Amino acid sequence: MAGVYMDNGATTQVDERVLEAMLPFLRNDFGNPSSIHSFGRDVKKALEEAREKVAAAINAEPREIFFTSGGTEANNLALLGLAKARQKKGKHIITSEIEHHAVFDVCKFLEKEGFKVTFLPVDNYGLVSPADVASSITEETILVSVMMANNEVGTIQPIKEIGEMLKGKDIYFHTDAVQVIGNAPVDVNELGVDLLSMSAHKFYGPKGVGVLFLRQGTKIDKINHGGGQERRVRPGTENIPGIIGMGKAIELATAGMVKHAEKVTFLRDKLIKGLLNIEESTLNGHPEKRLPGNVNIAFAYIEGESLVLSLDLKGVAASSGSACTSGSLDPSHVLKAMNLPAEIINGSIRLTLGKNNTEKDIDYCLEVMVPIVERLRKLSSVYKPG
Amino acid sequence: MAGVYMDNGATTQVDERVLEAMLPFLRNDFGNPSSIHSFGRDVKKALEEAREKVAAAINAEPREIFFTSGGTEANNLALLGLAKARQKKGKHIITSEIEHHAVFDVCKFLEKEGFKVTFLPVDNYGLVSPADVASSITEETILVSVMMANNEVGTIQPIKEIGEMLKGKDIYFHTDAVQVIGNAPVDVNELGVDLLSMSAHKFYGPKGVGVLFLRQGTKIDKINHGGGQERRVRPGTENIPGIIGMGKAIELATAGMVKHAEKVTFLRDKLIKGLLNIEESTLNGHPEKRLPGNVNIAFAYIEGESLVLSLDLKGVAASSGSACTSGSLDPSHVLKAMNLPAEIINGSIRLTLGKNNTEKDIDYCLEVMVPIVERLRKLSSVYKPG
Repeated sequence: MAGVYMDNGATTQVDERVLEAMLPFLRNDFGNPSSIHSFGRDVKKALEEAREKVAAAINAEPREIFFTSGGTEANNLALLGLAKARQKKGKHIITSEIEHHAVFDVCKFLEKEGFKVTFLPVDNYGLVSPADVASSITEETILVSVMMANNEVGTIQPIKEIGEMLKGKDIYFHTDAVQVIGNAPVDVNELGVDLLSMSAHKFYGPKGVGVLFLRQGTKIDKINHGGGQERRVRPGTENIPGIIGMGKAIELATAGMVKHAEKVTFLRDKLIKGLLNIEESTLNGHPEKRLPGNVNIAFAYIEGESLVLSLDLKGVAASSGSACTSGSLDPSHVLKAMNLPAEIINGSIRLTLGKNNTEKDIDYCLEVMVPIVERLRKLSSVYKPG
Repeated sequence: MAGVYMDNGATTQVDERVLEAMLPFLRNDFGNPSSIHSFGRDVKKALEEAREKVAAAINAEPREIFFTSGGTEANNLALLGLAKARQKKGKHIITSEIEHHAVFDVCKFLEKEGFKVTFLPVDNYGLVSPADVASSITEETILVSVMMANNEVGTIQPIKEIGEMLKGKDIYFHTDAVQVIGNAPVDVNELGVDLLSMSAHKFYGPKGVGVLFLRQGTKIDKINHGGGQERRVRPGTENIPGIIGMGKAIELATAGMVKHAEKVTFLRDKLIKGLLNIEESTLNGHPEKRLPGNVNIAFAYIEGESLVLSLDLKGVAASSGSACTSGSLDPSHVLKAMNLPAEIINGSIRLTLGKNNTEKDIDYCLEVMVPIVERLRKLSSVYKPG
């Protein structure tokens, strides 16, 4: 596969060093960590080392780390698990209108199950207001879930401020940090969160493995039932190669974060600047409170999806929103919540840069984008050149 | 890791050809299959090819195959999903007393949720009687779940007979076939099952991936909520390397099954014969209706766990029951259901043979077993040599 990959928000390429770390566990170290013989014990040791690495990266304790099959399961376990465990205390949950579907749809499901959910609005940048969170709290509130950074527009939320406001209250605080690990510091104590989700394949680890951080003392009901793995919170034989890869990936992502963020931010800003030179283009999301690699630009009067397909023909991989909703014809619920006009919502594309991108990629992307936008606008029935 | 591995019921070593098939997807073919660009489309194609391979292996249609994170999730999705979807029709489920915890504990959970569950007894061999299934059916019955082969004692259940008896009734039939794939033919039409679970790491595929077969027209509620992956049944970015590995593994397992079963049955019978030469030893499970690689033997007056640890010191990896409940002090619910006396239950060990075992392994195991059993019996306070 050759081309300019600018869809790191959808998934990233496994780092060679991560694969190297995984390989022994796909070859000779194949035991089941629940087995008491040496094949099992050796693997169990490696599993616990991976847990320590994840814990260290977010300033948590190893016993607060629970491996799952990915970010979606981590989010479901957090929300369904906490809602079920605390429903006697109250049935009110606060979240935002721009959550990933793995939180948003769980909240919609919980509404059907008799919970009351407040979906907080956001401003034009996609920012949740901590004051809105505060004023939404009732005696029934058991959980607040606000994502740390949005997957479509890259807006970074004031999680620390919300965490401080919630301090001392009998309300648990969850954040979906899937897009953040490796891009910005994540310290569960500084943020004041009780539950946090992540997914390895967003930071150069493998697909199929994620983590739920669960602060010591946070009780949740499990979703699946079975063996006693993951301290009875998440049953099933552990995805050992994936978990080992996740441990290595988070270690590398944390060690290289400052340099990575600096480089990717530089590329991002160059790409944004270049794209905004195209007429009737606007940046979606916050100009500064933004993930290092996230570029989300609207070109009025064209269809984002057509743009993505045209870019693909030129070897540039982009997306018109979240990969998890590709194929859906519904306009982005995130851009809608940001109250953007229809021509902006329809004409938006997301270019997410990662550590393998170069300045040459940016130059190439800008070079091919100008004629593509021009051509698509000529085909557009609603475009009237000014 | 060196040694004689006889715990293939807990997990198997990934076949080199499976790993070869996975590697491109851990390197350059890293796209998200939900992405519409070429990185995504190429991976989507490989995902659908893996689905076709799984479908072909069990005589199903590709659209009836849903990838999960493993056997536990497949079982949970089958039982919780079907129970929720059909609860208006009735709330009665029939299962057996010897199911794996990933079915058994789900049924216990459903009882708490207001379902009525009949746990069918088994005979001394661990066999469920189709007549018992038939006589347990009520107007409220929505689901029967009986495992295809037991993970501890290897007893193969009369699934086809149960399936035939259920034909034409408005009752869905699920079987946990986790231990069977690659060891015996699994044809969902011949068996007459509507739902079937499997797990790749039991047949030389990777850990962290499983499948739920869901016969066309079988409606289930999903457990997790999020993106629209796996045709809206199971959200979350697919574990692509794992899924590709599972496709390759089931292809190899099916092609090599007859030869594999013949070889492993020969080794099994040699091991059983040798072990039964030790005094006061008995075979648990059915002598013929038995998984090719399963040996489960009780040595009266010793502790199975001590035996496993002593064997481990000699380099033989065995288990005293299901790996998923290792560390638990409860006696096996399977052996208890088989109505075996306490000294049999406590003195049982499981040796599960696989395709990498040799006749030399059997000889070695028999050689070390005799003095270990002798030594442990000398230490036993209840053993009185006859």
